[in-house]
Amino acid sequence: MPKIDLDTIPQTNRTGYPQPYAAPMDKRLYRRVAPAAGIEDFGVSHVVLKPGGISSQRHWHEGEDEFVVMLAGEAVLVEEGNETMLRPGDCAAFPKGVANGHHLVNRSEADCVFIAIGKPATTDCHYPGIDMRLDAASGRYLHEDGTPY
Amino acid sequence: MPKIDLDTIPQTNRTGYPQPYAAPMDKRLYRRVAPAAGIEDFGVSHVVLKPGGISSQRHWHEGEDEFVVMLAGEAVLVEEGNETMLRPGDCAAFPKGVANGHHLVNRSEADCVFIAIGKPATTDCHYPGIDMRLDAASGRYLHEDGTPY
Repeated sequence: MPKIDLDTIPQTNRTGYPQPYAAPMDKRLYRRVAPAAGIEDFGVSHVVLKPGGISSQRHWHEGEDEFVVMLAGEAVLVEEGNETMLRPGDCAAFPKGVANGHHLVNRSEADCVFIAIGKPATTDCHYPGIDMRLDAASGRYLHEDGTPY
Repeated sequence: MPKIDLDTIPQTNRTGYPQPYAAPMDKRLYRRVAPAAGIEDFGVSHVVLKPGGISSQRHWHEGEDEFVVMLAGEAVLVEEGNETMLRPGDCAAFPKGVANGHHLVNRSEADCVFIAIGKPATTDCHYPGIDMRLDAASGRYLHEDGTPY
């Protein structure tokens, strides 16, 4: 059936970030919807941020577009030099190759829920301000100088 | 700014369907979000269905996955031999090549709003029950026997 029973998709707070950047991710609970739904043209994540949670470390992708739409609650979209509140129905897009590190932060006292659309990363991802990048070729997190965590 | 100001994106009820299949589309108001937001990896449509509106004629794509998430109101997901109510936060996926003609129908007395994600059609799209298919090579709507509308 096309309608997706989200409850049947495992929810996880797993992250590949090295410490100390992994610790803040424990309040991000996500489901990988696309494989469960049998689609592969793009990725779909259903994400719940608990109060205090962040969607990721602030980052930008060299080669993958991202799109988010808020479903419930509210989150602050933090980008380079700017913050914007996102509420249910609000959409945001992050074009590939734009060096504008961004993430969502739940500063409220209730859960927020959003859908994130993107493609699997085949290019490097940069994390401004925390001396980290994801090296797509190796799948490893590196310091900016190329040394591994 | 990554947050998308939907009001700045033109809203249209345009359709390429031939008559009489075009007429029912006048209650579907959509915005093409991806180009306005500078992303190209996938398409994003923000759709408002007025009461009585349908998202499309019932169809399935040979080669493109589709994903929808409801934002407001409610719509009936009509597929081959089945109907399912979609409410805010509900998601549905339509894997490519699955011959399950589907669309959303607003049978309520209020607008409903959803986001649809997909890729531009480069393969044929089939419209079961109404003797129509979209021929991707020519971009024309044809009868099942290949004659044009």
